[in-house]
Amino acid sequence: MARDPSGLLSARYYEDFRPGDEYDLGECVVSEAEIVEFAADWDPQYFHLDPVTAVDGPFGGIVASGWQICAAWMRAWDDAVLARAATLGLSEAEDIRWFVPWRPDQRLLARAVVLEPAPAAVRVRAEMHTPEGTLASSMVVSTPVAPRPA
Amino acid sequence: MARDPSGLLSARYYEDFRPGDEYDLGECVVSEAEIVEFAADWDPQYFHLDPVTAVDGPFGGIVASGWQICAAWMRAWDDAVLARAATLGLSEAEDIRWFVPWRPDQRLLARAVVLEPAPAAVRVRAEMHTPEGTLASSMVVSTPVAPRPA
Repeated sequence: MARDPSGLLSARYYEDFRPGDEYDLGECVVSEAEIVEFAADWDPQYFHLDPVTAVDGPFGGIVASGWQICAAWMRAWDDAVLARAATLGLSEAEDIRWFVPWRPDQRLLARAVVLEPAPAAVRVRAEMHTPEGTLASSMVVSTPVAPRPA
Repeated sequence: MARDPSGLLSARYYEDFRPGDEYDLGECVVSEAEIVEFAADWDPQYFHLDPVTAVDGPFGGIVASGWQICAAWMRAWDDAVLARAATLGLSEAEDIRWFVPWRPDQRLLARAVVLEPAPAAVRVRAEMHTPEGTLASSMVVSTPVAPRPA
């Protein structure tokens, strides 16, 4: 079977995720304009929205909404893994921590480590790291994934 | 003191949030176009992105990314409360659960209940309900808020 045009033969199913598996999901960057755009829609606190007044705020400048960090990790996870997996939706996320503010043009490296599975769901520790290796954010995300067809 | 043009006198500080306080944060609605736009940026799973193929997916139609539900709650919380509070950023979120998929033009009512505080942070149970009263999603969000100036 040399060809797999539908992608189905190479799709990942529930059984294909094993505790301890690690995924490097690549680099995430947002521009100041992307930070402001997200904030205007979803989280218009001034230190996410206004580069000028943010200078006098708690971060000394504009930083991304924490929800944008979660969203950026999700995009990296989608692109690297879920796009070829039999996902059934998103059911739970836990223990979200933001340790390092995400500033314009700052590179973060997304990573996932597979944890012990929940019934019918793949659980991963979702992390963002700075290029220097500091943990910038972490959470645990559970994604329902279908079992491999018999 | 009849006037408060800066809003500072009426700002909410840490001490102003009391366990058991409840906030009705109003109604949230997203159009199909807004669901697709968010998905294209942050969570391009087909059941968030493509109204046609989503019909054959797990929800029988397009539904918003779970992260868009979190973001919509945050926007409601910002507009109703944080815009007049001495917030210092977002530190933690826990126990995110999505029970009911969010479909185009479906109304959800956002709500917050203040929990026992963490040190220097206001903790709330963040909920979305359907107009019929079904709990659609919930999480616990901690927001650092400055104490009232002496």
